[in-house]
Amino acid sequence: MTREPSWRDWPVAVPVRVAWGEMDAFGHVNNIVYFRYFETARIAYFEACGFMASMAGGGPGPILAHTECRFRIPVTYPAELYVATRVAEIGEDRFTMDYAVFEAETGALAAEGTGRLVCFDYETKRKTPLPAAVRHRIRELEAALPG
Amino acid sequence: MTREPSWRDWPVAVPVRVAWGEMDAFGHVNNIVYFRYFETARIAYFEACGFMASMAGGGPGPILAHTECRFRIPVTYPAELYVATRVAEIGEDRFTMDYAVFEAETGALAAEGTGRLVCFDYETKRKTPLPAAVRHRIRELEAALPG
Amino acid sequence: MTREPSWRDWPVAVPVRVAWGEMDAFGHVNNIVYFRYFETARIAYFEACGFMASMAGGGPGPILAHTECRFRIPVTYPAELYVATRVAEIGEDRFTMDYAVFEAETGALAAEGTGRLVCFDYETKRKTPLPAAVRHRIRELEAALPG
Amino acid sequence: MTREPSWRDWPVAVPVRVAWGEMDAFGHVNNIVYFRYFETARIAYFEACGFMASMAGGGPGPILAHTECRFRIPVTYPAELYVATRVAEIGEDRFTMDYAVFEAETGALAAEGTGRLVCFDYETKRKTPLPAAVRHRIRELEAALPG
Repeated sequence: MTREPSWRDWPVAVPVRVAWGEMDAFGHVNNIVYFRYFETARIAYFEACGFMASMAGGGPGPILAHTECRFRIPVTYPAELYVATRVAEIGEDRFTMDYAVFEAETGALAAEGTGRLVCFDYETKRKTPLPAAVRHRIRELEAALPG
Repeated sequence: MTREPSWRDWPVAVPVRVAWGEMDAFGHVNNIVYFRYFETARIAYFEACGFMASMAGGGPGPILAHTECRFRIPVTYPAELYVATRVAEIGEDRFTMDYAVFEAETGALAAEGTGRLVCFDYETKRKTPLPAAVRHRIRELEAALPG
Repeated sequence: MTREPSWRDWPVAVPVRVAWGEMDAFGHVNNIVYFRYFETARIAYFEACGFMASMAGGGPGPILAHTECRFRIPVTYPAELYVATRVAEIGEDRFTMDYAVFEAETGALAAEGTGRLVCFDYETKRKTPLPAAVRHRIRELEAALPG
Repeated sequence: MTREPSWRDWPVAVPVRVAWGEMDAFGHVNNIVYFRYFETARIAYFEACGFMASMAGGGPGPILAHTECRFRIPVTYPAELYVATRVAEIGEDRFTMDYAVFEAETGALAAEGTGRLVCFDYETKRKTPLPAAVRHRIRELEAALPG
């Protein structure tokens, strides 16, 4: 996990408006909603790196194996957020993403988390290496990514 | 809509436990959750009448064209509910369902609603008559259904 | 219900981005999500007319008694929507709202619905007349509203 | 995290029926729903150990600081699950819970996770030691919990 000062430093960041109905009986955005926000950023990244197109064309796709969230500041309606993501580590058939939820107005980091993704071949039902084009596009998006 | 005294008088009724997280910032089960409950009963009915099997086999399936809910008693966690459904009216290529949400402990009617479904052929992308086997099974489930 | 050509003709319209995770196993935005969209517009209207402030100050607030949705065009991710609302009818202690979901790109009307709200006094636990200031502000918002 | 052979070995386990609408466009239960299941078990534990009553009486309550989930087997509708939880570690003003999602029919472990909770005083807005009665009740529930 990380504590970047701004969503502008991340390769992908999507704006999200908190819906009133996302708050629970404690009057804060419910914990599961942060994982919806992470997912929204994750899918945006998958589109940016060509993974959605790979899957749509019958190629391999990413499967979420693990995810976590650290809740730092409670969020309430109304709020505008930026949900940022990047690939933190990349392996042969897997990669790790970081997620961060920023409050648009203050820039405060409301929550942060990670996701571990596995590249899956839906035909053989097995893990498979990341498609070369996807890997290449991830490296472009993460210009600063070492190794 | 209807006000049956008990879910036992309906052809299909599914038990549902209210989840704490289904309550919103007003401290009651959020309005959209009742439509999830209706959907749960609807799918159970579709399984009972063979409509899920029809779709799974490439045949026509039902599409929700309209739904409504009247909220009668606020529901809070913890509660056990029965969500009941039946087919109220059946046409050539469409039918109407009633839904009712009962509190298991008291039998009180917490909410009631309807759904209008259209039978859709996913190949031709058009409305199509209800499959004969589905229609027959609906009639069996609704033994008392006139017409 | 209504079929206005654009969200710009409504007193309140909120932009909504469809989240990928709002789609269900049929690959379309799930039916209950439209009621979340309606709620988002409804709360925006309640803020605009001073009803949220009334409640926050211990005054009466609106309770949703009935809602319905007609689904016209399936919506899929990614899509940007405008969810519009207005007060269609206003009584002593109740009012009816219209809702409409427009696709931002095409302007198409994807869904429309209504909500019936009752003004409720949380202290006496009874229906109560709409606060005069709220009623006045609704009339301002609905300049064209007859009666 | 842990891999107990059965939910019967956990101090608290709640039965959960998968709703059809909890599946996403990939045709599996969506990742955020597992955190709803964890929450359902967590609240059941909070009720069992007296934490809900503490909060309701104006006393301190637990705040979720971190949570994670490892997804092991995709779950599809229809399925009945048991969601089990226990306190794995307990500190002065905090504790860690384990969660496990079992398929009722096969006993298979579909997912597992953890939650880190902090005891919070809503009046002082600060962390505070766990109420003695809650701590005592947790120890009773976790008869085998070392230390």
